[in-house]
Amino acid sequence: MAAAPRPTRADYVHLSTIDTRWMDNDAYGHVNNVVYYSFFDTAVNRWLIAQGVLDIASSAAIGLVVETQCRYYAPITFPDVVTAGLRVVHLGVSSVTYEIGLFANDDAEAAAEGHFVHVYVDRGTRAKVAIPPETRAALETLIVGARAG
Amino acid sequence: MAAAPRPTRADYVHLSTIDTRWMDNDAYGHVNNVVYYSFFDTAVNRWLIAQGVLDIASSAAIGLVVETQCRYYAPITFPDVVTAGLRVVHLGVSSVTYEIGLFANDDAEAAAEGHFVHVYVDRGTRAKVAIPPETRAALETLIVGARAG
Amino acid sequence: MAAAPRPTRADYVHLSTIDTRWMDNDAYGHVNNVVYYSFFDTAVNRWLIAQGVLDIASSAAIGLVVETQCRYYAPITFPDVVTAGLRVVHLGVSSVTYEIGLFANDDAEAAAEGHFVHVYVDRGTRAKVAIPPETRAALETLIVGARAG
Amino acid sequence: MAAAPRPTRADYVHLSTIDTRWMDNDAYGHVNNVVYYSFFDTAVNRWLIAQGVLDIASSAAIGLVVETQCRYYAPITFPDVVTAGLRVVHLGVSSVTYEIGLFANDDAEAAAEGHFVHVYVDRGTRAKVAIPPETRAALETLIVGARAG
Repeated sequence: MAAAPRPTRADYVHLSTIDTRWMDNDAYGHVNNVVYYSFFDTAVNRWLIAQGVLDIASSAAIGLVVETQCRYYAPITFPDVVTAGLRVVHLGVSSVTYEIGLFANDDAEAAAEGHFVHVYVDRGTRAKVAIPPETRAALETLIVGARAG
Repeated sequence: MAAAPRPTRADYVHLSTIDTRWMDNDAYGHVNNVVYYSFFDTAVNRWLIAQGVLDIASSAAIGLVVETQCRYYAPITFPDVVTAGLRVVHLGVSSVTYEIGLFANDDAEAAAEGHFVHVYVDRGTRAKVAIPPETRAALETLIVGARAG
Repeated sequence: MAAAPRPTRADYVHLSTIDTRWMDNDAYGHVNNVVYYSFFDTAVNRWLIAQGVLDIASSAAIGLVVETQCRYYAPITFPDVVTAGLRVVHLGVSSVTYEIGLFANDDAEAAAEGHFVHVYVDRGTRAKVAIPPETRAALETLIVGARAG
Repeated sequence: MAAAPRPTRADYVHLSTIDTRWMDNDAYGHVNNVVYYSFFDTAVNRWLIAQGVLDIASSAAIGLVVETQCRYYAPITFPDVVTAGLRVVHLGVSSVTYEIGLFANDDAEAAAEGHFVHVYVDRGTRAKVAIPPETRAALETLIVGARAG
């Protein structure tokens, strides 16, 4: 775990901030490990909504989470402000894998990094569907190097 | 606040248990004040579902929360098991006021008590509606003394 | 409840913003009632830390929550940004009562309002203590009209 | 992901139950992916406390989380009761890797499975330390097949 250098902000395509909350700190005085996944979840869905490709209440195709992972490098502590870096590393017919880095305040190196996999399903039947074209087009812009094309 | 005695289990009509979680403990080492409201919310809705008068995904009339309050008497600490006591103190045409007491482990006196007010609305339009008859009949059994009738 | 007008931003002395998170939305599609108290908790403690009168890990006197209340007027929905308005309405020897208003995005009227009561205790013994002078001086600036003095 | 069969209860050494809460359900009507990690965290720490090898407030050596992962197979929905299965798959000098399976109600197959890695550190300095002997002895009983020895 110590071998690879920690990611920096430049490793991600999109950056956005998320506030910590008092109750995020657990009995050991730092943001609890569980909360990091809420930062992942929030960064991904907020970005999708901002792109106009997700309406929580009505989109016909929605992303269900099938796998997540996080590696923790350094503590985050309320009232830190977190910056979440976002990139797409795999874009399949129905699934997308995001990688996310979390940075505390002005830190150059990530406090944590992980991935988050969405599989698109029909909202009603929950059967797997292809990622809708406009969503795919948006996701392609999160692929590192995509903008150089 | 110290004048009134703390409630006991006998003050409530229905009792049910809820597990605490590691992350409930905050930086001061006890279950965070916010989490108590999740115990309230869980006790009320679990009871409604168990009575067969709430289907989260399909009930035409749903209860929206318009007011809550909690007074904290003693700490609750993970891994305590909480017992939530439930009673109804007001039952209007569209609204119901629950009072809830929270007991840590085998404690006789409540660690906290509060109230929780639901107003029933139409799921689609969110316009106020009368409490459905079968829900009302169930709620009447939570009124203290109701069973003596 | 409908009789009194909803508070506006001008009713509060200090305003600060808090991000909503994806998981704040509950099964009915809006931020769950419990989460509002996390906004209260966060607004109060973040302000105390910013004033330099609270160090979570080391302050000798800490505020424990003894009562909270919230009235809900309108839904807040992820990804809304919440602005929390803060004022002090009672400042006793050991206790302080805050009132908080929560505003969604650019809304002029509060989506919710409530109060939050801290009693100061010794961190170690948890025995009641007087509010420390520098904390009191800071809290006095949150009393409506205090700045006119 | 579909290739491997989902774990069953027999794949784990220790089983314990955890209640779901109303607010665990997110906007898509099921327990949010983030909450699964709270089940992990709770199952591990509750077990350590029950073994007498963790005192949250005073243990000299504490476990910090350095990596977690979860694969989601089927939804869990409030008011389901979750059973968490626990086993240890790696026990190093300073670190322990748990694998956890989550089962909804009476389901035979896991709704989710994942891992959770603790590194032991000194509570004060947060420097890495060896897992204390009594903790190690307890952890050894969670290794699959250990009891046959």
